[in-house]
Amino acid sequence: MTGRTMTQNIYDDPDFFQGYSQLDRSVLGLDGAAEWPALRRMLPDLRDHAVLDLGCGFGWFCRWAREQGAAQVRGIDVSEKMLARARAETSDPAIGYTQADLERLTLDLGSYDLVYSSLVLHYVADLPRLLAEVHKALVVGGWLICSVEHPIYTAPSLPVWGTNAAGRRIWPVDSYLEEGPRSTDWLVEGVIKQHRTVASYVNLLLRNGFVLTHVEEWGPSGAQIDARPELAQERDRPPFLLLAARR
Amino acid sequence: MTGRTMTQNIYDDPDFFQGYSQLDRSVLGLDGAAEWPALRRMLPDLRDHAVLDLGCGFGWFCRWAREQGAAQVRGIDVSEKMLARARAETSDPAIGYTQADLERLTLDLGSYDLVYSSLVLHYVADLPRLLAEVHKALVVGGWLICSVEHPIYTAPSLPVWGTNAAGRRIWPVDSYLEEGPRSTDWLVEGVIKQHRTVASYVNLLLRNGFVLTHVEEWGPSGAQIDARPELAQERDRPPFLLLAARR
Repeated sequence: MTGRTMTQNIYDDPDFFQGYSQLDRSVLGLDGAAEWPALRRMLPDLRDHAVLDLGCGFGWFCRWAREQGAAQVRGIDVSEKMLARARAETSDPAIGYTQADLERLTLDLGSYDLVYSSLVLHYVADLPRLLAEVHKALVVGGWLICSVEHPIYTAPSLPVWGTNAAGRRIWPVDSYLEEGPRSTDWLVEGVIKQHRTVASYVNLLLRNGFVLTHVEEWGPSGAQIDARPELAQERDRPPFLLLAARR
Repeated sequence: MTGRTMTQNIYDDPDFFQGYSQLDRSVLGLDGAAEWPALRRMLPDLRDHAVLDLGCGFGWFCRWAREQGAAQVRGIDVSEKMLARARAETSDPAIGYTQADLERLTLDLGSYDLVYSSLVLHYVADLPRLLAEVHKALVVGGWLICSVEHPIYTAPSLPVWGTNAAGRRIWPVDSYLEEGPRSTDWLVEGVIKQHRTVASYVNLLLRNGFVLTHVEEWGPSGAQIDARPELAQERDRPPFLLLAARR
């Protein structure tokens, strides 16, 4: 790793931003993300809560949290382009957006009831540091609810579907236990993600003093596959890992 | 599932028993199991503890636990053949062996400080029932330390190594989220194991009131690969999942 981390760059890359802006989750918001119903079920009641969204992007979750009754919501993102759109879409004074790099972010002690992060932590190289910061920033009993790309999804050196000897679709896992950066082509070439094992995510939480309360290896429901048959392959290897933990 | 479960049968199958008896872990005991050093690191101090081993096999762990100072050790297994050898290898009155089916086992309240189980729980169809029984049988603060075949290992419909488009060795994952029996050929044809996701193992523990303290997706160390180069592939997809939890 150099000091130039992905959190500082990729979402402000014009081609990446253009591609990302056209994804369902960018156009339709939370309902455009197939894993959102599962993530939503893991959230506590937000009424009167102070909420922090790490990697808030266009601010969909921040605005939703306010609709659920959150008292204060802060969204943090490294991308100025995303924050510009997030700021343009609300005039709610209880929502604040801050540009910051998650590799260096510092937070005030006991200042949040919920820290939320959707599909961002797999870009963070120094996750132990960030999780220690998050633990410190939560009130006792406060929640961390997050999703990351699933380690089975991020492990392969060549992450493309293949077939086995019987002709069945398979996901080609290798190097699962070799943690570290993986360069993949997603929207643009050479996007760097940090591959970690499931055990590393869980143990990082435990070592930082969190109590793990739920884990989900997300895959589409039967109804979701009926509506979008192309999702069926996501049951062969889960694309997302969802974690719930409490301070 | 029929009432005829694997825990009742496979280890007493003459061919299976013959094959199993020749494995390093049967001949050399705990030191013949590559994952033992990792599992051992997860164990608490056993001095004066009451210990239960679910699926004790030849009794290697039971005898070791006594050497570590455990006050009482009980080994449970479904296989009469394995228990016969286990009984023949000790005259220690503090070690007791019982034949029982883990699908139906009942345990006394608060009677153990440690419940241990090595590579057995993936044969158990009604794991929720068994884990509730184990939780009940532990003293408050007591430990469950167990290993199972890793879900990445048990998932595939055709669990044999393949190659990707670049010619690299890959493990062909499919059906990861489809839980249930998998028939594989290991020592004999048609051994039935229960495939569960990592999330299911963890959530079953949490739902039964355990606090998760450590997770390990076991793979060989560099020194182990130097000594046995054929182990290298186990870093491409972990063969074992190790779990530590407390009541």
